[in-house]
Amino acid sequence: MKIDINFAKKESSNYSIFIDNLPTIELDKKVAIITNPKVSGLHIKKLLNSLKAKEIYIVTVPDGEDYKNMESLNFILERLFDHKLDRKSALIAFGGGVIGDMTGFAAAIFQRGIEFIQIPTTLLSQVDASVGGKTGINNRFGKNLIGAFHQPSAVYIDIDFLKTLPKREFSAGVAEIIKMAVTFDKEFFEWLERADLKKDEDLKTAIRKSIETKAKVVAQDEKEKGIRAVLNYGHTFAHVIENITNYKTYLHGEAVAIGINMANLLAVKLNLLTEEEANRIEKLLKRYDLPTTFKIEDPNEFYEHFFLDKKSMDSKIKFILPKHIGGYEMRDDIDKDIVIELLKEFGK
Amino acid sequence: MKIDINFAKKESSNYSIFIDNLPTIELDKKVAIITNPKVSGLHIKKLLNSLKAKEIYIVTVPDGEDYKNMESLNFILERLFDHKLDRKSALIAFGGGVIGDMTGFAAAIFQRGIEFIQIPTTLLSQVDASVGGKTGINNRFGKNLIGAFHQPSAVYIDIDFLKTLPKREFSAGVAEIIKMAVTFDKEFFEWLERADLKKDEDLKTAIRKSIETKAKVVAQDEKEKGIRAVLNYGHTFAHVIENITNYKTYLHGEAVAIGINMANLLAVKLNLLTEEEANRIEKLLKRYDLPTTFKIEDPNEFYEHFFLDKKSMDSKIKFILPKHIGGYEMRDDIDKDIVIELLKEFGK
Repeated sequence: MKIDINFAKKESSNYSIFIDNLPTIELDKKVAIITNPKVSGLHIKKLLNSLKAKEIYIVTVPDGEDYKNMESLNFILERLFDHKLDRKSALIAFGGGVIGDMTGFAAAIFQRGIEFIQIPTTLLSQVDASVGGKTGINNRFGKNLIGAFHQPSAVYIDIDFLKTLPKREFSAGVAEIIKMAVTFDKEFFEWLERADLKKDEDLKTAIRKSIETKAKVVAQDEKEKGIRAVLNYGHTFAHVIENITNYKTYLHGEAVAIGINMANLLAVKLNLLTEEEANRIEKLLKRYDLPTTFKIEDPNEFYEHFFLDKKSMDSKIKFILPKHIGGYEMRDDIDKDIVIELLKEFGK
Repeated sequence: MKIDINFAKKESSNYSIFIDNLPTIELDKKVAIITNPKVSGLHIKKLLNSLKAKEIYIVTVPDGEDYKNMESLNFILERLFDHKLDRKSALIAFGGGVIGDMTGFAAAIFQRGIEFIQIPTTLLSQVDASVGGKTGINNRFGKNLIGAFHQPSAVYIDIDFLKTLPKREFSAGVAEIIKMAVTFDKEFFEWLERADLKKDEDLKTAIRKSIETKAKVVAQDEKEKGIRAVLNYGHTFAHVIENITNYKTYLHGEAVAIGINMANLLAVKLNLLTEEEANRIEKLLKRYDLPTTFKIEDPNEFYEHFFLDKKSMDSKIKFILPKHIGGYEMRDDIDKDIVIELLKEFGK
């Protein structure tokens, strides 16, 4: 005999993203702020001045991608139990992408899921990590391999936190903004050509536009099956570059900037993008001091790196390419010869 | 400025529970069976004969509640990466509740969630763990404190697996069946009084009825906010008994049987249940050799144990009580004096 189980999930993801000076946040519950020493040192006072809660605990984990692992996650969880947080408590992610991903994941699995709030303090995490609900940690097999989809209950974006951000990290965030504009929104791209993201008002507008664009994409494809892949424009190449340089030479956003330029050159070859459009995109990247070139010693070796996480060299490589400015194409049928030709020309 | 994010979760939980001889299970993907040495030794051949998949891996973890921890979870996850499972792969939980909870949780967080199938091999896990989507592990702070809600894609219940189950474990499963009938379904209870669960047909009917009952409850309350608490009938007392006896004397279902009897006596005191009804329930429990008495040395100490996981003795204790047979009441307003009186009378 057979019993059919049907129950619709009652929860939908409704929350607000506030782009403004950090407002007073009132939470009638126990709260743990998860942060790192750097952000804590610079900004914890500001957050504590804005936060009203029943009890407030601060959990500090080491800074950086190397610590986005099971050990840090367990450390966070242990502290939550030490402080006797329960199912009605909330976490606040206070930091960049690493803090956001780990805090979100801890919130997803602590007592089968509790509320969490994002207060991203880097430009990259403000435009990118605050929408989409991806949470997780790395392990020795790769990045973000263990995790969950868990949406925040609110996101507070205050560009004042960016005043203390190193210039390179700021630019790395701009790369993700440009990425979003090129594939999804021609008007936004043209506005970026006229704007100056070093000015507060323009920066806020760019953050808002990026978030709205990403939200639209994610809403269509929450669990990442189709269009969401377009957010990886530039990333296929960027991952190889990061890999070859052992994640030491470039910030992620910088590698993405190079990857965007490589994808564009491929798109020009395939008549998806004009040379003039490719130049406009490169010019915009350069305006924010982003790297757009990369010396490729061995094109064949570079090509093989595409398959590092694949089972065999027969697997398809999926390229996200711009289709003029404001459009995109996903292609997994591109001849090896064409890609090698691109790598040779580009990497000179 | 403020951006509202709204996206309805597209996924609902639709799956089937099959109560029958294990059918051929065809999965056109990589599959990892998570099991323990005991179940593997007795039954893996039967499962492998029924399973058709692209690649099949077997991951064996130690048997028992003591091993439902982060270490075993990490062991499982590591093996999945070793075997190069990906987002399209599936896990099969092949064992009792411990295996089901851990496998479900591993499936929930491996690459942000993959498919899993339940093949429960104990009566308790067949009637209880196969519906509800609760997954998780224990830690030094308590049981099931880390976990997620993650629904299986299918559940296969074959009572042949129960032929090798120790008699006490079988009875412990029956306690949960009786629990379900008393609070939710008078007709089912009366049928149980006439039935003999040692007979295959009756057993299958009882499993089906229990699952249908639980499914109805869970569908109303997937994330455990209201009526789902009624499934804890008998458990408030059972947890104290398990605690006092260091989880060594009784199986969980046995402690629940005692707890049911204690809750009933309290319900009689409060005129929710007649003495005759309480006797009928006790008689049914005894028919399956379940314990229904417990010697309480110190009623005050027993009472204090209710608050072990609470912040203070001022917290409310929530009792789930039967309201005649087939009904229930949740009460958190019962005077300490009445409970102490019950503990004195019961524990003699």
